[in-house]
Amino acid sequence: MQIKSVGIEALVIIGGDGTFAGGMIFNKEFNFPLIGIPATIDNDIFGTNFTIGYDTALNTVVEAIDKIRDTASSHKRLFFIEVMGRDAGHIALNVGVGAGAEEILIPEENLGLDRLLQSLRRSKKSGKSSSIVVVAEGDKIGKNVFELRDYVEEHLPEYEVRVSVLGHLQRGGSPSCFDRVLASRMGVKAVESILEGKTNYMVGSINNKMELTSLEKAVKSHSKINKELLRVSDIMST
Amino acid sequence: MQIKSVGIEALVIIGGDGTFAGGMIFNKEFNFPLIGIPATIDNDIFGTNFTIGYDTALNTVVEAIDKIRDTASSHKRLFFIEVMGRDAGHIALNVGVGAGAEEILIPEENLGLDRLLQSLRRSKKSGKSSSIVVVAEGDKIGKNVFELRDYVEEHLPEYEVRVSVLGHLQRGGSPSCFDRVLASRMGVKAVESILEGKTNYMVGSINNKMELTSLEKAVKSHSKINKELLRVSDIMST
Amino acid sequence: MQIKSVGIEALVIIGGDGTFAGGMIFNKEFNFPLIGIPATIDNDIFGTNFTIGYDTALNTVVEAIDKIRDTASSHKRLFFIEVMGRDAGHIALNVGVGAGAEEILIPEENLGLDRLLQSLRRSKKSGKSSSIVVVAEGDKIGKNVFELRDYVEEHLPEYEVRVSVLGHLQRGGSPSCFDRVLASRMGVKAVESILEGKTNYMVGSINNKMELTSLEKAVKSHSKINKELLRVSDIMST
Amino acid sequence: MQIKSVGIEALVIIGGDGTFAGGMIFNKEFNFPLIGIPATIDNDIFGTNFTIGYDTALNTVVEAIDKIRDTASSHKRLFFIEVMGRDAGHIALNVGVGAGAEEILIPEENLGLDRLLQSLRRSKKSGKSSSIVVVAEGDKIGKNVFELRDYVEEHLPEYEVRVSVLGHLQRGGSPSCFDRVLASRMGVKAVESILEGKTNYMVGSINNKMELTSLEKAVKSHSKINKELLRVSDIMST
Repeated sequence: MQIKSVGIEALVIIGGDGTFAGGMIFNKEFNFPLIGIPATIDNDIFGTNFTIGYDTALNTVVEAIDKIRDTASSHKRLFFIEVMGRDAGHIALNVGVGAGAEEILIPEENLGLDRLLQSLRRSKKSGKSSSIVVVAEGDKIGKNVFELRDYVEEHLPEYEVRVSVLGHLQRGGSPSCFDRVLASRMGVKAVESILEGKTNYMVGSINNKMELTSLEKAVKSHSKINKELLRVSDIMST
Repeated sequence: MQIKSVGIEALVIIGGDGTFAGGMIFNKEFNFPLIGIPATIDNDIFGTNFTIGYDTALNTVVEAIDKIRDTASSHKRLFFIEVMGRDAGHIALNVGVGAGAEEILIPEENLGLDRLLQSLRRSKKSGKSSSIVVVAEGDKIGKNVFELRDYVEEHLPEYEVRVSVLGHLQRGGSPSCFDRVLASRMGVKAVESILEGKTNYMVGSINNKMELTSLEKAVKSHSKINKELLRVSDIMST
Repeated sequence: MQIKSVGIEALVIIGGDGTFAGGMIFNKEFNFPLIGIPATIDNDIFGTNFTIGYDTALNTVVEAIDKIRDTASSHKRLFFIEVMGRDAGHIALNVGVGAGAEEILIPEENLGLDRLLQSLRRSKKSGKSSSIVVVAEGDKIGKNVFELRDYVEEHLPEYEVRVSVLGHLQRGGSPSCFDRVLASRMGVKAVESILEGKTNYMVGSINNKMELTSLEKAVKSHSKINKELLRVSDIMST
Repeated sequence: MQIKSVGIEALVIIGGDGTFAGGMIFNKEFNFPLIGIPATIDNDIFGTNFTIGYDTALNTVVEAIDKIRDTASSHKRLFFIEVMGRDAGHIALNVGVGAGAEEILIPEENLGLDRLLQSLRRSKKSGKSSSIVVVAEGDKIGKNVFELRDYVEEHLPEYEVRVSVLGHLQRGGSPSCFDRVLASRMGVKAVESILEGKTNYMVGSINNKMELTSLEKAVKSHSKINKELLRVSDIMST
């Protein structure tokens, strides 16, 4: 095995589900020790409260929504903002609360088109100067953001709907301090775990402590959405 | 006329073509003195090198493209970024040069689909790690950015195309220093012009001096794209 | 009491130690129910892992240090950056790790001038292109940042030292997503606690759950520096 | 001469006065063709309206001042912000106008301590919630920013003065779109000038056109402060 012949004794693999699953195959085939570090903007990895990149992405999206709201001065304007998250609504839910969205559509919950229309009607009646709807890519309504726009414009003709698809800009940018400190702590923990002979684990931040979870478990499960935040969002947007 | 009865003797109107055209109707009907200040992110007003908001929008878009490029590490990735500009390509052209785009599609020029494909093939051969195409809303190819994606993926199947539609986030954000200084200078000039009895003009910044152009002329013409920049873009992207 | 006569039944007080101490006096004198929400960039409040404003300040400072490092291309340059923190080193320690500072001087630990000089000599030998030292206002060495500069330039004449005193810019700026979500959750918890008759508490985020701590306890104690982070900083900077 | 032996036929030198002066010595000694490109945040080069880096620095400083103003809610607070500019007040003057400073102290004008105190007294009477004074490093009053603070606190004891010394963070950061486009245009012009045999010139942007100025002239003179902006500043701050 070439990797051993150059003196590499263990690998630190950084990524999400796919990276870890690949790593485990590699590990089984060659019995080569690994430690995983969770890094994905989606924050959907079991065994850690936070993945590297997630906090940075939240700030990027909130800044984008702030800029959209700056010009949302007409009460007939409705903004649909598509954010990343095919399987997990962590980004949508957090930026929705952080940016004061009227509605948040996430993969974990099927709000339903009826409730969306109701909510927008109510928002309009309450005299809000503008409405922002955050839509995760994988939202359960089953329409993409342009189909949603057409649907809403048809049923609520008093609205002009504008769409932003943030796309890959959510993956870039200079990392937040939180992400840098998290990455530094995880890196140190990963190396120390290897030195202690503990491998085939993923490093996670649980309750602000560095903890190890077996890679197998990390790949099999997913982190759950914070139900409290759904409630906070409902309270804040009414 | 109510506006006179409360002691208002002149109006400073701030906006683009529509605002000025409306102001001129108002002026003709009521013979009420006006001064216009050009403020639109599109920078397409005759009689000024720069409109208020334009420089801020350029920075916003360049920042967004920088974030997209951060993750564009695979040479099979192609990013189409739609920016504002239904009738004018000032934003697309400047951010395209500023962010090193491979191609820039603007309303003023019909590049043609063939040349686009050629250019992308050439870019791929040259070993670039990623390609970014900036598309103004009103580009002359006559396809929207999603139709363009489908067309390119069909003809260049080796590419995975990703789309960002920046939308109204381009209109917001904290103003750049350039825009603030421009706005302060235009505001002072507008008030001083009124005090000197010069009205029905638009204030403009021409060669870094505050100059007056008749509102009528400002509305009838449009600022032209900088041809030198088209050439710079061609040189930089090859 | 006027506040009752207008129908106010409880107060949510937002701030740090001083605010809470004042609130408790008010509470004792008038027996008026209160809930405290911790908001200070210093993050030194007992009963919560995070105070509102702290995460935003960390990002602001890290961005500033990044800009300083951009130009730190000469290996003879040394940058001393004074950050807030008269009694607590949370900001200095986290931004120091986040921005890769060579040394971090905090109120909780007296590094000593000798070790500072040693560390800078070692950093120079290791061929680093520049060195950044983060200094909390209340660092225990007992010299202000300009006196430190003079001391270091005298003892390490091969260095040119540059100083930035960030000052109050650390208190401003648009809040990070983390701070917004934290503030929303704390606000909801505060109101719900009042409705449940639980008052004279401070809302805190402990292990990512909203928890109550008596205001008295919150005022008497302080949050401790994270010792693990001191170790991470030592490891990362050598 | 080694540089010729490896096939280099001309140099494009990028920098300020010092770079150009050095280049001219090199040119005289070896008769080696040069083209200069002006790049300094100070914008004090003759032969160009804008130097590369200047626009980016203006935005950096205005952002910093915005953050300071965010917390300047008490009318007893006075902020002195030291910005770069030992010999030229371009940065101070533009950010002062852009951020709405009450006073701007620059090397080109000696405002005098008396007028500063007068202005601050007037600002206080007018009920402003806070006052910001921008101080160029090389301001002509002859006191550094901390001595100024002490002087003002002694003579206007009703004020609490806070100081920020922005330092080298003004030199870093991601370039603005304006600076990127300027740099691209200057680069193209520099290469084209060399190809046309026009050397020992500096490329400049004059009235938005790329123009050549002899390096000798560029080094001997300096760009002047915009007097109109001094007037705008006076009008805006009263």
